[in-house]
Amino acid sequence: MNDTFAVKKHREWNGKVEVVPKSPVSTLEELSVAYTPGVAEACLAIKEDINESYNLTARNNLVAIITDGTAILGLGNIGPEAGMPVMEGKAALFKAYAGVNAFPICIRTTDTEEIIKTIKYLEPTFGGINLEDIAAPRCFEIETRLKQELDIPVFHDDQHGTAIVVGAALINALKIVKKDIKDIKVCINGPGAAGTAIGKYLLKMGVKDVVWVDEHGIVDRYRTYTNKNLEELSKISNADNLTGKLKDAIKDRDLFVGVSVGNVLSKELVKTMAHDAIVFALANPVPEISYQDAKEAGARIVGTGSSKNPNQINNVLVFPGVFRGALEVRASDINTEMMIAASYGIAATVSEEELNEEYILPYAFNKKAHENVVKYVKEAAIKTKVNRL
Amino acid sequence: MNDTFAVKKHREWNGKVEVVPKSPVSTLEELSVAYTPGVAEACLAIKEDINESYNLTARNNLVAIITDGTAILGLGNIGPEAGMPVMEGKAALFKAYAGVNAFPICIRTTDTEEIIKTIKYLEPTFGGINLEDIAAPRCFEIETRLKQELDIPVFHDDQHGTAIVVGAALINALKIVKKDIKDIKVCINGPGAAGTAIGKYLLKMGVKDVVWVDEHGIVDRYRTYTNKNLEELSKISNADNLTGKLKDAIKDRDLFVGVSVGNVLSKELVKTMAHDAIVFALANPVPEISYQDAKEAGARIVGTGSSKNPNQINNVLVFPGVFRGALEVRASDINTEMMIAASYGIAATVSEEELNEEYILPYAFNKKAHENVVKYVKEAAIKTKVNRL
Repeated sequence: MNDTFAVKKHREWNGKVEVVPKSPVSTLEELSVAYTPGVAEACLAIKEDINESYNLTARNNLVAIITDGTAILGLGNIGPEAGMPVMEGKAALFKAYAGVNAFPICIRTTDTEEIIKTIKYLEPTFGGINLEDIAAPRCFEIETRLKQELDIPVFHDDQHGTAIVVGAALINALKIVKKDIKDIKVCINGPGAAGTAIGKYLLKMGVKDVVWVDEHGIVDRYRTYTNKNLEELSKISNADNLTGKLKDAIKDRDLFVGVSVGNVLSKELVKTMAHDAIVFALANPVPEISYQDAKEAGARIVGTGSSKNPNQINNVLVFPGVFRGALEVRASDINTEMMIAASYGIAATVSEEELNEEYILPYAFNKKAHENVVKYVKEAAIKTKVNRL
Repeated sequence: MNDTFAVKKHREWNGKVEVVPKSPVSTLEELSVAYTPGVAEACLAIKEDINESYNLTARNNLVAIITDGTAILGLGNIGPEAGMPVMEGKAALFKAYAGVNAFPICIRTTDTEEIIKTIKYLEPTFGGINLEDIAAPRCFEIETRLKQELDIPVFHDDQHGTAIVVGAALINALKIVKKDIKDIKVCINGPGAAGTAIGKYLLKMGVKDVVWVDEHGIVDRYRTYTNKNLEELSKISNADNLTGKLKDAIKDRDLFVGVSVGNVLSKELVKTMAHDAIVFALANPVPEISYQDAKEAGARIVGTGSSKNPNQINNVLVFPGVFRGALEVRASDINTEMMIAASYGIAATVSEEELNEEYILPYAFNKKAHENVVKYVKEAAIKTKVNRL
C-alpha cells in the first residue's frame, strides 16, 4: 500500500516531538554544574524540601499524556503503539499553543488497577496527568481514583476537554439565539465518556433538563442497567420523564449534542426540535448529521468536529491552556470552577462584532483563545483555593 | 541557606530538558496532518504493522532513563523527586553527545516486581531502557529480568556503563605498561552494582584473575554469604584462593579498581602492588586514594572519577553512543560483544601519539569518542546478529 500524505509526513518526522537540553553541557565546566559533581547539590536541595522539585527540575511545567490505546480517536482499541501518533500530536500542541512540555506515554495494560498504580508510580516525574483515549467505563474509575489519590492535577481530556469546548460553543450560541441556559432542554446522543461528561457539565453550567439517549433509546428510569454509569445518568436526568427512542427525546429540544456514530440523525428529526435549534454533531470522522443537512432542516446553529465546516468544536482549544493555567499556580486539582472558567475564556475570545451563526468559536490555533483559557483558569483556581502558588 | 552556584543554575533552568515539537501545527492544514484527521492514518498504519511504530513515532530514537531514586550518585536512597536532577542531566547528555532523545522517569516504588512490571507497561513508548541509580542487589534482578522479558535493549548504566569505561581505560593503560590483559591480576574493592559488573566484565575481556574485596575482607570460598551476589562472585573469582583483608588482596596485583568509599587505600598498600601498577580509584566524591598519593606511592597510571585530575574515568563516554548504536540498527539487546566493542571504540579515540600516563581516555565531551562508540557498537550488533535493521 502506498503511503497517504499524512503517513508520508509522519515517516519524515519520525516522531513529532523530541527531548532537547536546556542546560549547556559542552565543556568540563558546564558538565560539572549540570551533571556531576554540581548536580548533587540540586538533588540534596530537593531531598531537604520536596517542593524544590518544582523549582529545580522540569516538573513545574511538565504533563504526561497517558493512554492505554483502547479508545483512540474514532478508531477504538488499536493498542498502545498505534495510539502513539495521537499522543505525540497532542504533545506538540501542548507546547506550540501554551508552552507546556508534554510527554506522550502509551502503556501496555488495560487493567484499571494496574493503570492507576502505574500512573501513581510516575507521579514524582510530572506536574500534571492528561488521561487520553481510555475506553469507558474504565476511564471514569481511573480518573476519579487518580484525582483522589494524586497530589497533582488530573484531567481526562476526552471527557472534560470535550465538555469544556461544547460549553464554550453553547455560551456563544445562546447569545445568538437569545435563550437563557437555565431554560434550554438538551438531548445528548451517546452516553460514553464524552457524552456523559458533557451532560453532567451542562447541568453544572446551569442547564436544568438533559436527556441522554443510547443505542437502545432514552436513558429512562424504567430500563434495567448493567452499566453503572447509565444507571447513574438515569437518576440525574430526564426531568420530563421521557421514554422511547431518539425521536421521542429530540422533540422540542433546544440543543442536540451527538457524540455517537455517523448519520444517526435525520433531517426529519431536526425539524421536530424547538425554534432556533442548536445542533452539535460531533461524531468523527462522519457526524450524526452533516452540517448542510442540519442547516437545511432548520437548525439555526450547527457545529461539527470537522474544520471543513464552520464552527469546529475542537478540544484543542482546551487542554493546552487548562494545564498551563493549573501549572502556573501549581493547582492541586482541575476542578469544575476551573473548567467552567475555561469555557467562558474560550467564548470571550469571540467579540460581539465577530460573533455570528457561522463563527461561535475561535480557531484551534487562535493565540488569544489559549491565553484567555490560561487567565480564566488561573483566576478560578485562586478563587477556589486550589492554587499552591 | 543560600543557593550554591549549581543550585542557582538549576533554579534558572527550571528543568534541564524540554519537549519540543518536530511537526508544524500552526495552521488548520498543518493540524489536519499532524493531528486529526490525518493522524488516524498513521495510527492505522501501525495497527497494520507494529514495526511501523519505529518509523512513524519517536520510538526509534527514544530512551527512557529510569530510576527508583535508591542509589543516586554517592547520595544513596534520596527518593524519586530528589533523583530527578541526575536523570535530567543524563537526558541532556544523551541528546548533546549522540543525538538521542532521552526522557527521565523517576518512579515511586522500590519493589522489584513492581519496577519490572511498570517498565514492561512502558515498553511501547520507547526504543530502549537505561536503568539508573537503582540499589544493589535489586538492580541485578531488575536488569536480568527486563533483558529477558522486553523486546528492546535494556542497559543498567551503573553496572555496564562503568564497566565499559573502566575497560577502555584498561585497554589503553596496558598499552603503556606493556602487559597482556590475560596476564594481569586484578583487585576490585566494593562488590556493589558497579564493582560486580566491572569484575565480571574484565573476566569477559580476557582477565584471568580477579579478586573482590568487601568491608569484611576478601570474597573467598570460606565465608558464608547471605547476599546471593557475593556468593556467586566467590565462585567465579580468586584464582589464587586468597583469604584475609584488602592488604592480602592487593599485594602483587597489577590493577586496583575501587568503587567503594573514600580514603580506604593507603600509600603503603599501593607500594605492595606489582611493578607498573594501575590504580583506578573511582569512589565519589572522595576517591579510595587521591591521585597524588597513588602516584607518589609508585602507581604508574592512576585514574579517578574526578575531572580535576588526569584520566577521569567517566561513563558519560559510554551511554550516549551505546544507545545510539543500538538504536540505529534497532538491536534487540545490548550484549557483551557490543559492550566490549564500546570499550575498544573509546580506547581507539586516543591515538598512539597522544597516549601517555596522564591521558589514557578522551574527555567526556569528545565528539570523536562518541562517534567511535556508535560505530563499534553497531558493527558488534550486526556481527552478533541482534540487529533488526
